Amino acid sequence: MSEPLFNKIALVGIGLIGSSLARVIRREHLAGHLAISTRSEATLKRAEELGLGDGYTTDAQQAVRDADLVIVSVPVGSSGQVAQEIAPSLKRGAILTDVGSTKGSVIAQMQPHVPPGVHFIPGHPLAGTEKSGPDAGFAELFENRWCIFTPLPDTDPAALEKLSEFWRRCGSNIDTMDPQHHDMTLAIVSHLPHIIAYNIVGTADDLESVTKSEVIKYSASGFRDFTRLAASDPTMWRDVCLHNKDAILEMLARFSEDLASLQRAIRWGDGEKLFDLFTRTRAVRRSIIEAGQDIDAPDFGRQAVEHPGGSRQ
Amino acid sequence: MSEPLFNKIALVGIGLIGSSLARVIRREHLAGHLAISTRSEATLKRAEELGLGDGYTTDAQQAVRDADLVIVSVPVGSSGQVAQEIAPSLKRGAILTDVGSTKGSVIAQMQPHVPPGVHFIPGHPLAGTEKSGPDAGFAELFENRWCIFTPLPDTDPAALEKLSEFWRRCGSNIDTMDPQHHDMTLAIVSHLPHIIAYNIVGTADDLESVTKSEVIKYSASGFRDFTRLAASDPTMWRDVCLHNKDAILEMLARFSEDLASLQRAIRWGDGEKLFDLFTRTRAVRRSIIEAGQDIDAPDFGRQAVEHPGGSRQ
Repeated sequence: MSEPLFNKIALVGIGLIGSSLARVIRREHLAGHLAISTRSEATLKRAEELGLGDGYTTDAQQAVRDADLVIVSVPVGSSGQVAQEIAPSLKRGAILTDVGSTKGSVIAQMQPHVPPGVHFIPGHPLAGTEKSGPDAGFAELFENRWCIFTPLPDTDPAALEKLSEFWRRCGSNIDTMDPQHHDMTLAIVSHLPHIIAYNIVGTADDLESVTKSEVIKYSASGFRDFTRLAASDPTMWRDVCLHNKDAILEMLARFSEDLASLQRAIRWGDGEKLFDLFTRTRAVRRSIIEAGQDIDAPDFGRQAVEHPGGSRQ
Repeated sequence: MSEPLFNKIALVGIGLIGSSLARVIRREHLAGHLAISTRSEATLKRAEELGLGDGYTTDAQQAVRDADLVIVSVPVGSSGQVAQEIAPSLKRGAILTDVGSTKGSVIAQMQPHVPPGVHFIPGHPLAGTEKSGPDAGFAELFENRWCIFTPLPDTDPAALEKLSEFWRRCGSNIDTMDPQHHDMTLAIVSHLPHIIAYNIVGTADDLESVTKSEVIKYSASGFRDFTRLAASDPTMWRDVCLHNKDAILEMLARFSEDLASLQRAIRWGDGEKLFDLFTRTRAVRRSIIEAGQDIDAPDFGRQAVEHPGGSRQ
């Protein structure tokens, strides 16, 4: 068997992302020793039952000791606290990275604690599902997904290359960008969609003219798509909203302006304007399919999952 | 082979819904003769190449002659015109139904043209995908989906029962409700989600801070879910907006009020309020899964479609 990429990897946080990393690290033999740490006793116990690592502890300091790669996979609001806690135990020359959905805020929280000689490289794998916790992870989560780094001006190129190699072995494609641009981009492709989904599901939950059981019963007409995003981890998404506030408010303002204009078109019966918008958006879907960022199967291929033998003649 | 349910069925319109009906009618042997009609020469030719029926014509009058069941599957804005056109050729005792997404407007458009002795029963199968046209249909489309009738006060119970039997043989579950309640219910479970999806995709398409190619490249972070709904047939959705205006504007107003409140919570950094909403919406998803209205596989089971052999240990 070939040498592992790192002698010791420490995972701080073992939710959907952390536990998916644990699974792919094992499958690809990327670590000589894999230390797993989480604050919750129950989650740690579950990770151990699942056999996700080589060592388990609720003490993050202990987990990161001697580690060559430390990956922090916690809600972005906790990243400063984690950095402060583990800083004294980080090995000189170690790579410290994270997987948070916002980068400006994570850098502001973590960087002040990073000791000299430790390579801090903020990262964000664009991968996830609506599930959370150590049971939800799977080794294929990162396949063909982007992992974005937002390196700092003084980032060591060799450390960046080694971390890139790690993510490539996890199946990801690598990109780098400026933290501010990352936060603006993610605000539109990820944060706004989730916030809108949470909002519409909340609206439907609050009606008096249509009962909650009717909403659930007839949800296959479109609504259920939103409920998937709106089932994502509440702590993670609360933190995203609090830590990428400016970019999110900017995107929300634009969305609301566009919605007011669409609302007016409906009120005035402006069929041409509606038709134009509804045609333009169709082209965006086509580009996403062509870019390999979604499957072309109708209804996200649900039919194939529900009726594996179903003919589509 | 058992007797077909109807001697002759005529399908006026052969898009996603019409062509799915054609396929299930053949599979379940529901018609002695299946006549297919559409105004577009090209679409009719495609339906014939696909072997969807027994007779093909661009003349709807000819298609419905002697038919025992006539199913109008056209954008709701065209239903009045179709009713006027076919009325003189409808057989006494025939059942006339539609599949439109709005019911108040369809009734107002079609009912005045229905000749005495013809049983007009407005209907709406809650089934579809983002695809359109005769190639997009498949026989399993209606399986375990609801078909809602909004019968008129003088609807003949025997005709309603026969039409219900037809839809049950297509795999559907039957429901009946008042047209106004149908339109309000569909406004929240279907029309609002589609409009919001069209709107957010339009917003993303219009940004200057994030390029269109970045939006496409990173769409797997959430955005791509919306693009599926926003790829639905533009003519159909323009007509839905124009023909269920009041209920849609009502739902849009509520959605916007809720969004303003959510926006304020983000601006003020009110984490508790965000967490409460994001937790409440998660329960709605659970209810939908429990009601069998969506699959529980993460990401709508895309992973299973993309990597059929992929392990999920």
